Amino acid sequence: MEKSIEVRNPRTGKFDYVIIPPPQKLLAQQCQRMRRAQVRWFTLGIEGRIEALQSWKQYIIKAREKLIDALIVDTGRLSMSVFEVDWLIASIDRWCMKAPRLLRVNEYDTSVSYINLQQTAEPYPLVGVISPWSFPLLLSTVDTVPALLAGCAVIVKPSEIAPRFMAPLQATLNNIPQLRDVLSFVEGGEETGAFLLECVDVICFTGNIETGRSVFETAAEQFIPAYLELGGKDPAIVLESADLDLATSAILWGAVVNSGQSCNSIERIYVASSIFEKFYHQLITKAHKLQFAYPTIESGELGPIIAAKQAIIISEHLQDAKVAGAVIHCGGIENINGGWWCRPTVLTEVDHTMKVMTEETFGPIMPVMAFKTVSEAINLANDSIYGNGAAVFAQEEQEASLVAQHIHTSTVSINDASLAIAIPEGETNAFKFSGIGEKRFGAAGLTRFLCKKNLFIKTKPIHNPWWFNNPMDS
Amino acid sequence: MEKSIEVRNPRTGKFDYVIIPPPQKLLAQQCQRMRRAQVRWFTLGIEGRIEALQSWKQYIIKAREKLIDALIVDTGRLSMSVFEVDWLIASIDRWCMKAPRLLRVNEYDTSVSYINLQQTAEPYPLVGVISPWSFPLLLSTVDTVPALLAGCAVIVKPSEIAPRFMAPLQATLNNIPQLRDVLSFVEGGEETGAFLLECVDVICFTGNIETGRSVFETAAEQFIPAYLELGGKDPAIVLESADLDLATSAILWGAVVNSGQSCNSIERIYVASSIFEKFYHQLITKAHKLQFAYPTIESGELGPIIAAKQAIIISEHLQDAKVAGAVIHCGGIENINGGWWCRPTVLTEVDHTMKVMTEETFGPIMPVMAFKTVSEAINLANDSIYGNGAAVFAQEEQEASLVAQHIHTSTVSINDASLAIAIPEGETNAFKFSGIGEKRFGAAGLTRFLCKKNLFIKTKPIHNPWWFNNPMDS
Repeated sequence: MEKSIEVRNPRTGKFDYVIIPPPQKLLAQQCQRMRRAQVRWFTLGIEGRIEALQSWKQYIIKAREKLIDALIVDTGRLSMSVFEVDWLIASIDRWCMKAPRLLRVNEYDTSVSYINLQQTAEPYPLVGVISPWSFPLLLSTVDTVPALLAGCAVIVKPSEIAPRFMAPLQATLNNIPQLRDVLSFVEGGEETGAFLLECVDVICFTGNIETGRSVFETAAEQFIPAYLELGGKDPAIVLESADLDLATSAILWGAVVNSGQSCNSIERIYVASSIFEKFYHQLITKAHKLQFAYPTIESGELGPIIAAKQAIIISEHLQDAKVAGAVIHCGGIENINGGWWCRPTVLTEVDHTMKVMTEETFGPIMPVMAFKTVSEAINLANDSIYGNGAAVFAQEEQEASLVAQHIHTSTVSINDASLAIAIPEGETNAFKFSGIGEKRFGAAGLTRFLCKKNLFIKTKPIHNPWWFNNPMDS
Repeated sequence: MEKSIEVRNPRTGKFDYVIIPPPQKLLAQQCQRMRRAQVRWFTLGIEGRIEALQSWKQYIIKAREKLIDALIVDTGRLSMSVFEVDWLIASIDRWCMKAPRLLRVNEYDTSVSYINLQQTAEPYPLVGVISPWSFPLLLSTVDTVPALLAGCAVIVKPSEIAPRFMAPLQATLNNIPQLRDVLSFVEGGEETGAFLLECVDVICFTGNIETGRSVFETAAEQFIPAYLELGGKDPAIVLESADLDLATSAILWGAVVNSGQSCNSIERIYVASSIFEKFYHQLITKAHKLQFAYPTIESGELGPIIAAKQAIIISEHLQDAKVAGAVIHCGGIENINGGWWCRPTVLTEVDHTMKVMTEETFGPIMPVMAFKTVSEAINLANDSIYGNGAAVFAQEEQEASLVAQHIHTSTVSINDASLAIAIPEGETNAFKFSGIGEKRFGAAGLTRFLCKKNLFIKTKPIHNPWWFNNPMDS
């Protein structure tokens, strides 16, 4: 059994909350109970499951303030906490609308006229979700909602770094017995997560590459599918023709949103050399306008660095860049009364020997590098083990699109940054080390929780004539 | 470097062929060359790739007799060798027809009116295929053709047990330089296969569970997607209402096709107790009509057991069943002048303590068990680590369909057996230990070789209004 875990408050640095991971035996029993309940849940049909989720939505709306309050303590920031709760509410509606079409039985035309082909599907009985602390509520429900609608039971282990939202969220389930029996949130750290992997039929993991790789290896040993959403080091390319005001605002926003603690945040900026000086001066000017959400949470836009271990990584990356000759124009990380805070930080004189250009920083850090040719910009953008997202800025959409086509990332925003989470309609796959498997948006966000099954129905009593001559027929 | 491998002739038992695996350094260099060639191949566009594959088809048609002759020596059987070559020819046409639609750019309606979403895709550069000896040509090209059309380069390592077809197949590529540069067939055994896994971006493996699991684990270490098509222990359920003549003919055929050396063959038969006696007597009568393709290959329908190691497994399963009380009514395995041959073998008095009911036999073995209730039949069918295919027989389609819905397998044939390979239009996933990932039929057969990518194009210069209020806008 994993020991109880003390939880740090990101604004105060104090350990003011405790979670108690369940004993493995209890967790295993719970998974067995959930598997039994899943049979009933699936039998409800999609209408019944939508009804249960809509009822859940009402309880979430009722608990909205409590959830926001818990997320505020978990993460120390305000607007993103509100956003998370409202995103969950909207996401339930979105999936409830989409699910019936995605779950209907397909009839195919077949190459053999007297054989009908029906495609049905059955859900994986028990889905495991392991989610990180950057968006604690959003990332522990983004895969959960479509999986539930697909007919799965879902057991979620959120990060031990931001677990306070779990209590009010679990409470919303109390009055919906059908849903409560197939959806659980489990407190715990790494050990509990590892044990969970042994209990489920498919695993959705969002987090860093290192843990993600080990999740994939364990999933392979367990012989279960793994959907991994790992890190990013999203580049922005600003072409000579770009609208500078738009580019600096969008990139700044893409880099500092959630204080950079997002796998979709801009972490490297490549600017055409002719506009390089102008660009970074304007970026610095705009960066200065942003304020810490301190001393009160309403004081400014920038919340604290949530995880103490991340503050160390940010410091290291800045220090490493500085030693190697980078110029830090503004920003930097500091400890204020126990909490870690990082101002929007603009660097120049950077290159790809530095961690700040190659490893995920997960802070509001904007290293800016000039490029001479477009192909140099593309090569720099692609010189990464990550392939999550990117942004390209140019006057004409077509000019930007041409560049975007050559960037090896799942998503590219054109004349904006980090649109992926806002526009969940398209399907994507993870590129390079940013993940494995179909990603969570588009139809696949739900259908990847289904085992698709074909029924071949022969409508005439002929013996296998499709294969080869059957002597039985003579 | 893996040592040279002597290859056994399944009809004579003599080792009359040798393959020489390439040194690892050469193989690695070849993969690098193929990666460079893939860039040109992808740039050809789908029309150019279709042209190259159609040209390949013409050379395959010209080499048809040579390919069939090589497959006959590889496998010792006739009609399935012809089938394999003709299947490949048809499959090229089928995928060439389907590919353009599957590769077109999708435009999505988005939830934000001034953002256009385009879905494009890029192929995994280098696909690895590791294929087995049961259908040497078919299973080394079934994933290859759609992967090539997707724009990938493909390196194939067929089984060292049936590699003679590779020389005439490789020769068909000589006059198509564009294709020859992105498609290679590599001789080798386990070591070469293991090394190949380190060189590719995605792996397609068809073979047994044991090797498949280790391929999955290596793929996870390499952090590449794995599509595994492993074994099966396909059950047939014959309900009381079934047309007995149709059921016995279809099941016999489903069990003995390719001498049972198919992951889609029927390996267990559950019959309603009221018709049990009649069923197995009729099955035995029909089984007696089938003859070995010996002394000449035209002498009968049943080819030899291709792999000597499989002959041992078949013997073991029969011996194990006999010792545990099974009655063997006809058939059995024998060595004739060095080759292993197995007659259609009907067993009764079997149960799930026996290997013949639980492990993949991969021979023309038909253990028949009576059931009292339909739910007992379903439970027996589902009592397996495999989830490949199944067959259900009943008078009315609806009665069979109801049963089929409860069987946890990727495919269920109704009033026929093993239709999956003949009707490749539907999409399926592997169930249980029969595999991992989307299977090779339907649209996914091609699209699983693509990384799907979203381009978000903002059509109005507004700063991120979708996310939260941006102070830059004020």
